[in-house]
Formats: sequence, structure tokens, C-alpha cells
Amino acid sequence: MKVHIWAENRPLEQARERMAEFYPHGIEGVLADMLRSCTDWTVTTSTSLDEEYGLCETLLQDVDVLVYWSHKYWREIPDTYVDILQNRVLNGMGLVLLHSAHASKIFSRLLGTRTQTLRWRESDDSQRVWVVRPAHPICSGLQKEYFDIPQDETYGEYFEIPQPDELVFLTVSSQGEVLRSGLCYHRGRGKIFYFSSGHETYPVYYQREVQLVIKNAVAWAKCTDTYDTWPVWARKAELLGGI
Amino acid sequence: MKVHIWAENRPLEQARERMAEFYPHGIEGVLADMLRSCTDWTVTTSTSLDEEYGLCETLLQDVDVLVYWSHKYWREIPDTYVDILQNRVLNGMGLVLLHSAHASKIFSRLLGTRTQTLRWRESDDSQRVWVVRPAHPICSGLQKEYFDIPQDETYGEYFEIPQPDELVFLTVSSQGEVLRSGLCYHRGRGKIFYFSSGHETYPVYYQREVQLVIKNAVAWAKCTDTYDTWPVWARKAELLGGI
Amino acid sequence: MKVHIWAENRPLEQARERMAEFYPHGIEGVLADMLRSCTDWTVTTSTSLDEEYGLCETLLQDVDVLVYWSHKYWREIPDTYVDILQNRVLNGMGLVLLHSAHASKIFSRLLGTRTQTLRWRESDDSQRVWVVRPAHPICSGLQKEYFDIPQDETYGEYFEIPQPDELVFLTVSSQGEVLRSGLCYHRGRGKIFYFSSGHETYPVYYQREVQLVIKNAVAWAKCTDTYDTWPVWARKAELLGGI
Amino acid sequence: MKVHIWAENRPLEQARERMAEFYPHGIEGVLADMLRSCTDWTVTTSTSLDEEYGLCETLLQDVDVLVYWSHKYWREIPDTYVDILQNRVLNGMGLVLLHSAHASKIFSRLLGTRTQTLRWRESDDSQRVWVVRPAHPICSGLQKEYFDIPQDETYGEYFEIPQPDELVFLTVSSQGEVLRSGLCYHRGRGKIFYFSSGHETYPVYYQREVQLVIKNAVAWAKCTDTYDTWPVWARKAELLGGI
Repeated sequence: MKVHIWAENRPLEQARERMAEFYPHGIEGVLADMLRSCTDWTVTTSTSLDEEYGLCETLLQDVDVLVYWSHKYWREIPDTYVDILQNRVLNGMGLVLLHSAHASKIFSRLLGTRTQTLRWRESDDSQRVWVVRPAHPICSGLQKEYFDIPQDETYGEYFEIPQPDELVFLTVSSQGEVLRSGLCYHRGRGKIFYFSSGHETYPVYYQREVQLVIKNAVAWAKCTDTYDTWPVWARKAELLGGI
Repeated sequence: MKVHIWAENRPLEQARERMAEFYPHGIEGVLADMLRSCTDWTVTTSTSLDEEYGLCETLLQDVDVLVYWSHKYWREIPDTYVDILQNRVLNGMGLVLLHSAHASKIFSRLLGTRTQTLRWRESDDSQRVWVVRPAHPICSGLQKEYFDIPQDETYGEYFEIPQPDELVFLTVSSQGEVLRSGLCYHRGRGKIFYFSSGHETYPVYYQREVQLVIKNAVAWAKCTDTYDTWPVWARKAELLGGI
Repeated sequence: MKVHIWAENRPLEQARERMAEFYPHGIEGVLADMLRSCTDWTVTTSTSLDEEYGLCETLLQDVDVLVYWSHKYWREIPDTYVDILQNRVLNGMGLVLLHSAHASKIFSRLLGTRTQTLRWRESDDSQRVWVVRPAHPICSGLQKEYFDIPQDETYGEYFEIPQPDELVFLTVSSQGEVLRSGLCYHRGRGKIFYFSSGHETYPVYYQREVQLVIKNAVAWAKCTDTYDTWPVWARKAELLGGI
Repeated sequence: MKVHIWAENRPLEQARERMAEFYPHGIEGVLADMLRSCTDWTVTTSTSLDEEYGLCETLLQDVDVLVYWSHKYWREIPDTYVDILQNRVLNGMGLVLLHSAHASKIFSRLLGTRTQTLRWRESDDSQRVWVVRPAHPICSGLQKEYFDIPQDETYGEYFEIPQPDELVFLTVSSQGEVLRSGLCYHRGRGKIFYFSSGHETYPVYYQREVQLVIKNAVAWAKCTDTYDTWPVWARKAELLGGI
């Protein structure tokens, strides 16, 4: 099992100090450490500052699941790399999108809507994450109906997304906003999970429940089918020269 | 278009006074007045205190949409009447369930789960109803992304329901609970809408937005197909002597 | 209600004669005549041979529902026009896609998958269209569980699409292929219906049931919400400069 | 992992001879042999002729997944046992329903519709089972887009079921009927899979692909959540004295 973690790694001026405090090795760093410590998966990382935006085709070729954290600079990823990502997902690479990756081109591309559309507010609000599908594998190990995140940026509806195939979490801010915040989609052979928590200025990714959700999501997103051994007919789209 | 409104009409001792204040002619009364005033629909009412629990087969025979408000005494509706209701819904009668009707036998029967399961708390909390599917006909006429109900009983997740065919509203209480609170299901020829607002001790059903949602839901729930003119094959189940 | 019908109108060499026989005024012509004869809708048409591929922004600006028939040359529609179409759909324009429009860029764009992927075979096979959701408004007026199309091109699974929000028809060819052939999706404010019947070398669009399905689909696809009167927040995505 | 296989085991007069030929130890026998031979699961069996219809509460108490084959005598299972089955499923027991179990009370109970409603025809037709969700774990190991069953009873639409949470297979008969034939539902903590193949007068359950589908379905249906360790609140419904 090969997991790759990609993060934008370009904090805004005003976030730089806190980001450095909580994530001295980047968000990709803390997530990689966490996954390495509790699994035997091969975990690699890259960022938007690397060559080819850290998303070159050979790098992604053998990845089973990609964890993707992006923020402000989503417009700057060239469409070529969005094409590569989309093809990989449709061919079976799992994709776990975190926090502001709701706005990423790849999420819009896979869902067909303006996923940038949601209500947001920089805040120190606490967030309560409610489980609405307790039997889902992504909830495995959670111990009750909700968990609290002491501080995070606030997101809220209306969020322009197709109705999710599986709705797992709803997040309520201490000011009363609510977001469909844990979402599963199936596109081609690929599984996609979006989870809204984790602004770079809070230590959200150190929290036990958040780590559990991400680990579960990566395990869930791994493709287990044998479709790639089927005759060529079923995969004809790849021969068409892409979409 | 024939609409029938049914209500349990058996307030608990402690609710009697406020119920009498806000709903001197019952919840069925205020809803009937509202629907009559803004539509040309034929609107009738009955309650659980009427003969045959107000649910006799001939009464329901021509009803296009049934609005159903129940509370504490859901266990007392005999299964025979639940059978009648289920058959009518599967044959095309729309069903709009309000507030504690989440626990009603007919809702459990149509969904297959223990719909009684949710978190609840008698409270004077305010409730914010968020729209998560603004293009749905049930939202028509609403003017923004949410509306507030000054006081209502609080309901919350986890709510044991199948994932709704269409999720329209999420309700957040001022204490931070959240509920999937506006739910559409399709069963056989019938359309079902559940809406969680409206405890009997608050004047919720006088509120403009709530009235709009209920009116829209009734219009939406009306069956418009021509399936009942199809050859007998497709309706064979009715000949089997019921389920 | 303003309906616009767009067709590729570039028959292959080998199809030219039969196309001219059945559709002397194009597929757009027979569909426009049909809709005009049984409704009071304003119906206009254009083709890919018109200026700006018949898809210029001002032309689409007031369209309530677009009917879209395309075939071989789907790759030649420039992305700019796909952007315009997608924005219009997300903002509420209904979209009814016919036959080979499964491969169109706009369908892929809205669904996120390689919708080009399906099994196809030029054939004179008869096709049986089965209704699997008889209570859906698109089936209104149909008189039994299926209808037959004497001859049409054959399409079959596997079809790379997200699970439809509403699955209305399955089509079985006389050789045993099957396709999920009547599909509803909701994206943003827009409703989308795909219907697979209607190769240009057969008189499919003169058939009563097919005409009924298309007319019903257009009526269904019209946006009826009032979301465009909501405050600007909810529509912020449009201000972002598009996706 | 404990798997229990239950079969009605009351062949009709006219089916007795062929049933004895193909299934001398019952359908439960061949399925048990198959699962034992390729897994390390504990596999037990019972039939409707056993005490308490082979469905007593203590027997089901520790079962992880129940495989259920029934036919003509579905009406004779008393509601008490349907209650037990439903409670077990909602509390996490997986349920794999085969062939005529579409008509079983437990399937109707969990789905809320008249699942008896489908078109059927005793026939020696061949059946082509098409995969419409190749990435689903239930398809793992299948080698192409369809497989053929040389002879089986024919089922067809219209099938009165809620739209499945996951539609995996479509089956086309050699006479042109089609059925949504591989269906996944989630109810409470339980996963449910219905698969339509396997009349008792044909050796369907010896076929490699069918065995693979059943084995995969059992593995998929096993509950893996940790919800039963949550505080009592979330399981309050169990305390209510049933539905």
C-alpha cells in the first residue's frame, strides 16, 4: 500500500508564524509521521513548491491513495496536472481531500460543480463533528456520536456539491453554522473522501479523532477491485486520448 | 387536489395549557386554515380521538396528500391502520410527516429502521434551519440560506434513517445539536417528506417559512404519474393480499 | 418557458442519405416541430455549423431548457463553450442530452467521469426500453412497463457514470446488451436528463413514446426555484471568476 | 467470522426431482460446502423445517452474516421471527438474500415496499448478468463485464424497491426481460445484498461466478464498525421495546 501526501505549503503572511509553530515540517509532515507510526504503509510526500508542483505523473503512477491538502492557491495548479489527477482517480487511485481542498480544481473536476461555494469565516470557533453514519468504516474506532475540535476555521452551507454517495459527518460551529463535512463519492474506479477540518493555524491534525478519521479514510479509499485485469473493452476510454 | 391533515391531539398534562393557547383548534386546525387560505385545495382533518383513530380506509381512499403530526402515543395506532397507510402511500398518496412523527409506526414501516432513534431534549432553544438543496421545490419562496425558529424542542443526531433520497434541510439548535431535518423518500408510487419542526408548546406552525415549507411539501408530494392506468401486471402486488 | 434545441448536424458520409430521408430539417427540426405542436413553449434551434458553434453565450442566456444532440464531433466543441454551458446549468438551465451526447464534453464535465466509456455497436437491433421508476414525472403518459424501438444503434454497459440520482429507464437490445439509459442528475441549480435513444439513421424521434419522454424531460428539467433572488452570499462562486 | 445459511427447503411437487438431483443436501448444503472450502469462516445451516422455523433468536445471536434463500412459503414465517431478523440486521448482522427471497417478509420489512412485485416467468432461459459497478468489492475477481447463467427462472422489472444505495448488477434474460439484480442497502448498522440468481431446479449455485459473488457479498456484509461500544444513548431504540 503506497500513500502519498501532498500539501500546498504556501502559508499566507499572517499564518506563517503559527503554521511554523504547529507544523514545522508542514502539514504533509505531521500526516506522514502519523500514518507511518500506526501502519506499515509506504508514505511519501511532496508540496506545490516541488518540481512540477509536486504532482508529476511518474510520482503518482503507483500511488494507491493520495491525501491532498490545499488552500489559497488552488487556481495555480495547471490543468495538465488536474488531468493527471483525474485520470488516476478514475483508474482507481483513492483521494482524500482535506480542509480548503474543497476549492481545489480536482474536486470541482470530479464533482462537476463549483465546490468553491461555501460560507467561510476566519474564526477561533470550536467545532463539533457529528457522526451521521456510524456504521461507515471511516468511523471505526470513534467512541461516541460526536467529537469536538477546540478551534478551527468555520465553514458552512450552502455548499455546492452533488448529494454525496455517503454522508458521514456534519460539523457545527460554536456560532451555529453547519456543513456537510465528511463526504464520500465514487467516480470510475476511484473513491473520494472530503473532510473539512484542519486550518493551518490550529493543531487540528494532532488530535486523536482527526488522525483516526484520516487513517480510516485512507484505508477505505484504497481500490480493491480486479477491474484492471478485464479485457480492454471496458477500459476503452483511456484509448480515446483522455476526456 | 384533496389534502387531509391528521394529528394525534392528545397533549401531555404539562403541555395542555400552552397547546390550548397556541392551538385552540388543534395543530390540524391551524394547518388546515393555512392551506385553505392560500390554495384551492380541499382540506379535511381528523385526529386520533376520532372513530377508527381518524384513519379509516374510506376516509383515506381519495386523499392525494396526508399531513401527519403525531407525538407520544405513536405505539397506540394499531398495525391495521399502519397497513392501510402504507398501502395508500405505495399506491401514490403523498405523506408529509411533522415533528415527532419521526417515531410513528408508518415512518418506521416505510423506511425499515428504528426511526424513533434520535437525540431529543425538551428545551426552549432556538433552532436554525439551513437549506442544503436550494433548488428543491420544497424550498421555493424561501429568501435565504437559513431561517430561525425562536423556540422549539431540540432534536439531534444520530437519527437512524436510511440515507434520504433528497436531503433538503439541516437544523442546528442553539446548544449545538444538528439533525437531518428535511428528508425526501420515494417508496412505490408515493413521495414522503419528513420535517422536524413544530412542538405543540410553541407557535411554530404560525411562522411564515414553516408554513411555506409545508405548503411546498404538500404540492411536491402529490402523485402525478399515470401508472394506475397501466395493465394489471405492474400492480400485481395488490392482488397478493398485501405484504 | 424557452426551450432551445441544439444538434451537431454533421452526419457521417455513410449516414447522410438516411439522415436526409428521415430528418430533412435535421434532428433539431423534428424535435422543434414536436415541442411546438403540443406546448406553448418558445422553441428555437441551432447547430454546430452555426456561428460560435451555435452555442454563443447570449443565445443561451435566457434558455430555460437546452436539448442537446451530438455525435461524432464532440471533441471539436472548444472548452470555452463547455464552460458557458456548465455555468448555465449550475445556474439553473435544464439540460436534456440525447443519444451520443453521452460522449459530449459537457456531460463529462458535469459528471466528472469518462462518459465516453460504453459499449456500442452499429446495428439494426430493436431496443426495449424498460421503466424502472414508473412514478417519475418523465414517465407520465406512458402506458406500460416498456416500449419498443424497432431499430436503433446499440449501446451497452459498462457505462462509466456516477450512480444516477434517479434511474428511470433501462434499455435492452435484441442481442442482450443493457444500458442504464434514462438518467437524472442534479448539479447546482440545474437538472440534467440523459436518454440514450435516437441514432440519426432511424426515425426514432417520430415515435410517440420517445416524443413523450423528451417532452416530459424538458418540463421536468425546468428550474422552478427562487434561489436567484437570494442574497449574494449564496451565489459567491459566480464572482470567483468561474471554476 | 460466523456465517449462517438458511433455506426454505420445501420444494414444490414439480421441482422435487430436479432439486434432489442438483441439491441432495439442500441449497444450504452446497453453499455451506462452498464457503467452508475457500474461507476459514464458521459456517452453519438451518431450514424452515427446523424448530422455530430455523430462525430462533439464540441461533442468530452471534451470526455475523446470514445468507437467506426462500421461495414459495414466505408468508408462513411468523412476524415474530421477522422482528428478530430485522433487529439483528439493524444491530449489525449482514444479510445476503438470494433469488425468491426478494418476496420474503424480511426484505419488505427492511425496504418498506412490496418487494414481491416483479415480473416472473418459469423458463429455461439463459441469463446474462451485467456488471454496472465494477469497482464494487462484490465484483472482485470477476473477469469481464458480464457472465452467463445457462438456465434460470426469469425475473424482470418493474420491481418495487427503493432506489438501491449501490446498484451492482443488471440481469437480462434471453427473452429480453431485465432486472436490477444485484442490490446493496444500508439499514442501521446492517448491510443487505440481494442477488436474484438461483432457482432450485438449476445448478446455478455450482457456477464459479455465482459462488464468487456470494462469497464476496458475505465478506462485504460483515459489520466492521465499533458503534456497539458507544455510550447507551445512541442505542436507545433497543431499549424502547422494539419498533
